[in-house]
Amino acid sequence: MKLPASTEWVLHCATTLAQLEPGATASAKQLAEYFDLPGPYLAKQLQALVRAGVLAATTGPRGGFRLARPAAEITFLQLVEAVDGAAPPYECREIRQQGRGALPPEDCRDTCILARKMAEAHDVWRRHLAATTLADILSELPPTAPTRTRSRLTAGR
Amino acid sequence: MKLPASTEWVLHCATTLAQLEPGATASAKQLAEYFDLPGPYLAKQLQALVRAGVLAATTGPRGGFRLARPAAEITFLQLVEAVDGAAPPYECREIRQQGRGALPPEDCRDTCILARKMAEAHDVWRRHLAATTLADILSELPPTAPTRTRSRLTAGR
Repeated sequence: MKLPASTEWVLHCATTLAQLEPGATASAKQLAEYFDLPGPYLAKQLQALVRAGVLAATTGPRGGFRLARPAAEITFLQLVEAVDGAAPPYECREIRQQGRGALPPEDCRDTCILARKMAEAHDVWRRHLAATTLADILSELPPTAPTRTRSRLTAGR
Repeated sequence: MKLPASTEWVLHCATTLAQLEPGATASAKQLAEYFDLPGPYLAKQLQALVRAGVLAATTGPRGGFRLARPAAEITFLQLVEAVDGAAPPYECREIRQQGRGALPPEDCRDTCILARKMAEAHDVWRRHLAATTLADILSELPPTAPTRTRSRLTAGR
């Protein structure tokens, strides 16, 4: 059970964008250089965040990405599911309905209890990530972080 | 983020073994036929459960697998991690320490806050699965289930 490496990228990029002045943007190239990541592949992940409604993209010579919403309204769950999808890790293929022990269809109207327990665990994971916002992260950064972040990021402009 | 298909197999096989008379066993072949699963590959997963201390294997003509512990002491977490390992899904590759924005080593003695939040979510998932036992499942099965399970399973002996 693995999340893609780009999960770390988008969490860090969103945290970085959350430290910019209101309305300021950063390009995929700037963010790629800031973290030494492959630019074209990072750009794809940032576009996924735009599709998820987490980032807004602006075009033009000073164009780039910024948060589409306040940091308090951007959750880890949105960021993670933007790059990994929302499919639960446990997949029930209904093996209870096959083989010599096959249960009859009338006994399988409800979700398999094993799948239900696995879904509950996924739900607590999702709820935890949904309760963690970029604003929570900002509140734990050192007070000097945003100034440093802005200056290092725009050095690539 | 996907669990292997064999996760469903081991949850069902362990639930099946939990319904046998004390001391009774079932072979990999019986379990494979019970659920119409590929025998050799299922046998490998059952061996993984033996290594995890969840099942005991007995040899000989009537040999097979049985629970190594009472059902109340076998958790979903043990079953899931026996086949998928215990590695957390989020991997921190320390991109905070690379690129133009690289933080100095002295600022990176603590785990990255983003990795910490992801680890917390994994912890709540693990705790939920650790709190779910085979005994919980047995208590929710219809009262007729064990008799049916035993007779269908041993039909393959």
